[in-house]
Amino acid sequence: MEEPPHRRRAHAGSRDLQRYAGLFAERTGVMRSSAMRDLMAITARPEVISLAGGLPDTSTFPAATFAAQMTRIAQESAAEALQYGPTEGFAATVDCIVEVMGAEGMLPDHDDVIVTTGGQQAIDLICKTLIDPGDVVVCEAPTYPGAVPVFCSYQAETIQVDCDEDGMRIDELDAVLERLDREGRRPKLVYSVPSFQNPAGVTLSLERRRRLVELARSRELLVVEDNPYGLLRFGGEPLPPLYQLDGGDFVIYVGTFSKILSPGIRLGWAVAPPPVMEKIVLGKQASDLCTSTLTQHFVREYFAEGRWQAYVDSLAELYRGRRDTMVEALRRHFPPQATWTEPEGGMFIWATLPEFIDTGDLLAKALREDVAFVPGQSAYVEDGRGRNSMRLNFSGSGEEEIREGIRRIGNVVAEQVELYHALTAGKGAEGSPGTPGREAEDVPVDVKAKPSSGPGHDLTPPGPDEGAVLPFRKKENTG
Amino acid sequence: MEEPPHRRRAHAGSRDLQRYAGLFAERTGVMRSSAMRDLMAITARPEVISLAGGLPDTSTFPAATFAAQMTRIAQESAAEALQYGPTEGFAATVDCIVEVMGAEGMLPDHDDVIVTTGGQQAIDLICKTLIDPGDVVVCEAPTYPGAVPVFCSYQAETIQVDCDEDGMRIDELDAVLERLDREGRRPKLVYSVPSFQNPAGVTLSLERRRRLVELARSRELLVVEDNPYGLLRFGGEPLPPLYQLDGGDFVIYVGTFSKILSPGIRLGWAVAPPPVMEKIVLGKQASDLCTSTLTQHFVREYFAEGRWQAYVDSLAELYRGRRDTMVEALRRHFPPQATWTEPEGGMFIWATLPEFIDTGDLLAKALREDVAFVPGQSAYVEDGRGRNSMRLNFSGSGEEEIREGIRRIGNVVAEQVELYHALTAGKGAEGSPGTPGREAEDVPVDVKAKPSSGPGHDLTPPGPDEGAVLPFRKKENTG
Repeated sequence: MEEPPHRRRAHAGSRDLQRYAGLFAERTGVMRSSAMRDLMAITARPEVISLAGGLPDTSTFPAATFAAQMTRIAQESAAEALQYGPTEGFAATVDCIVEVMGAEGMLPDHDDVIVTTGGQQAIDLICKTLIDPGDVVVCEAPTYPGAVPVFCSYQAETIQVDCDEDGMRIDELDAVLERLDREGRRPKLVYSVPSFQNPAGVTLSLERRRRLVELARSRELLVVEDNPYGLLRFGGEPLPPLYQLDGGDFVIYVGTFSKILSPGIRLGWAVAPPPVMEKIVLGKQASDLCTSTLTQHFVREYFAEGRWQAYVDSLAELYRGRRDTMVEALRRHFPPQATWTEPEGGMFIWATLPEFIDTGDLLAKALREDVAFVPGQSAYVEDGRGRNSMRLNFSGSGEEEIREGIRRIGNVVAEQVELYHALTAGKGAEGSPGTPGREAEDVPVDVKAKPSSGPGHDLTPPGPDEGAVLPFRKKENTG
Repeated sequence: MEEPPHRRRAHAGSRDLQRYAGLFAERTGVMRSSAMRDLMAITARPEVISLAGGLPDTSTFPAATFAAQMTRIAQESAAEALQYGPTEGFAATVDCIVEVMGAEGMLPDHDDVIVTTGGQQAIDLICKTLIDPGDVVVCEAPTYPGAVPVFCSYQAETIQVDCDEDGMRIDELDAVLERLDREGRRPKLVYSVPSFQNPAGVTLSLERRRRLVELARSRELLVVEDNPYGLLRFGGEPLPPLYQLDGGDFVIYVGTFSKILSPGIRLGWAVAPPPVMEKIVLGKQASDLCTSTLTQHFVREYFAEGRWQAYVDSLAELYRGRRDTMVEALRRHFPPQATWTEPEGGMFIWATLPEFIDTGDLLAKALREDVAFVPGQSAYVEDGRGRNSMRLNFSGSGEEEIREGIRRIGNVVAEQVELYHALTAGKGAEGSPGTPGREAEDVPVDVKAKPSSGPGHDLTPPGPDEGAVLPFRKKENTG
């Protein structure tokens, strides 16, 4: 006991995994890292153009406004802003939340709202309330990469339902629910990002929204609607959120200030019926007692200015230009066999490359060229899916960076395509130079990809909906 | 589907528990509310003197400093302060944490530290990493009321080891570990607040600290040291934290800025060896992605001023006066049979009343007199323990409030004592007027309370260490 700490700290050998492994909870065996999170460290290097993160552009937030609000807090309510607050959050924060939801036509009861430490905690607390190990969770394919670690940490069995241009395929969801019925199982929840989905950028059509809500009500099935991007629409008619269509009986709503104001304040919320909310509040108490009162005061002061919607509109305008720039760059620098979505809002494009390209391997090469993206696999729970796709973020980088970033990715893709052709020359392999864009024209609206016979592949035998890719509009290759 | 939301919102009947109960996770059946949290709503009423919360006095934090720091952040790093950050926290925040731990003689590796959303999340993430349902957790009796909901939410079997004036009884801990050995079980962790414990106010002696660390090292047992109050010492010699004695092999450390700066910024931390930290980071990703970057910048700017320790010293001085005031008020207004601890630091006094008084019932009466405390039961996982004790906070109220609050509680206690004596008059019941302070003199250093035969009692048959009360120094009753 007399040995000084700095001496003992040297016993690296005594600190290896073996000693602790036996103590770890079972959940740690299936807990996964979110690729985005891992990439943050790498992409912090200034020379790296990161199209990986889901970062809003916080540089556009007026520093003067920020300073003025904080000064007001310091002068008028410093003691309260630095103190503990109620677990449910301040009523004033809930007023702001109700105002934001009202902007999309929703009318939640104040009592049904809890302020959370970002939308991520809302998802975690909902799962904490509903999920036992082995329970079934249904979500989109691909799904929000940050939701995958939550479902895994609660040891859920996650079933992913394919998306097409109109979002989650409700016919496929219906089939999944029927199958589960026959097995005597009932999913605890269906998780969906209906608008400008992360990562696919697609939006659930009005007709499908109605069908999904009807399904939920007829089957008494809980739907978790995660809607961080709904207000970031670049054009066209807004669609009613699922929560509005349902009225809040079976749709649990997750919202956040991260994409309309700031992720750094870690303020999100959940809206749930009283019996569920009661459990969510208990879960929140154990998780972190309450949400930051300082950042709640910040939001209150900011909303008091009445300019929050104008700022959101300015972000949407900014992101629309960046989406156009990224789409143009993709046409110029990606090979003819590549396809991508064209979101009408939000922050992400989902690009799909020839099947012989593994975007996990591609990322390593891309990072050597100082550019980053999120490999498609991180949007799937099941191994082997999304291997030839990638999530590209257009909100966090300027247009010049986007052009250069896509150019660099396009170059490493081109190298892979050439390598593949060199190895398969004359074997009439798909995507051979002689047939530019052939697959593209052949692809039906919800094509199933076949496992590639290309090199460097190690696909597990495909299941019925293995490796489904999103449909796309074929772009003229102007490169 | 065409029915407008506001109409459907009226279907209260359709939103009752039955519909959702079948969907709740098993853990919700044992999840508990933290009494402190529930009390926050009630005690928010301005007329209530709350000695219930664990609130530091944030009114002493200089508003000018606050405003200056925030203005600096707005001018120099607004975009970063509003953006996502790394899951582990900023290196600059970790520098501040290492400085705080250094002030108590600890030398953690920067890589062993993760910034969390308050100390509460650190406890939650450690349990997330280690606890499966049915696993054994050992903690103090009484223990931090906010830790009870965490242990319950992970469905741990919690065993509480009695405290006396020198903190957790290591001989009793040893006996518990022996018993578990014979049962072929191994506790996943021992949770302790060694300094100025919440709620008891007692401090683990140096000799017991050494023995606890020896136990941990010889049994390869993880100890979680929760040390929010260590720097709030009113006098006497500081004791080395368990982490310092162990060097960080078997002691996982939990710290927070809540009691030395502000709870409203929700900044705490955990220090753990790399294999454990790796899992904690995964857990944090799923829980809330990262800790507020805005409040991390606030801490960085605040520490850059180099005055943080002077502020902590000013808090300790303030709280020392309030402790003295509360002790004096207890002598004046509590009955001779009442006992209490006299902490040398921190924020809490633990008072124990005659056994025929149930502090749960007493709280209802106290709230009618606009005064609140935390009933002792909330510091025990096992029902029926701590029934005649209460936690009193002296950091969050001014000296006048403390005097008045204790006077009001003393009055409702006196009513209960009179009622009891009226009902048991002449039956030689303990605490009868004829024998003021008798029990006090009789009480050995670790007396076991016997279940009372008094009215209004519903004690389950006592276990071997059922209803143990803390020892105390008998005070002259000057009232």
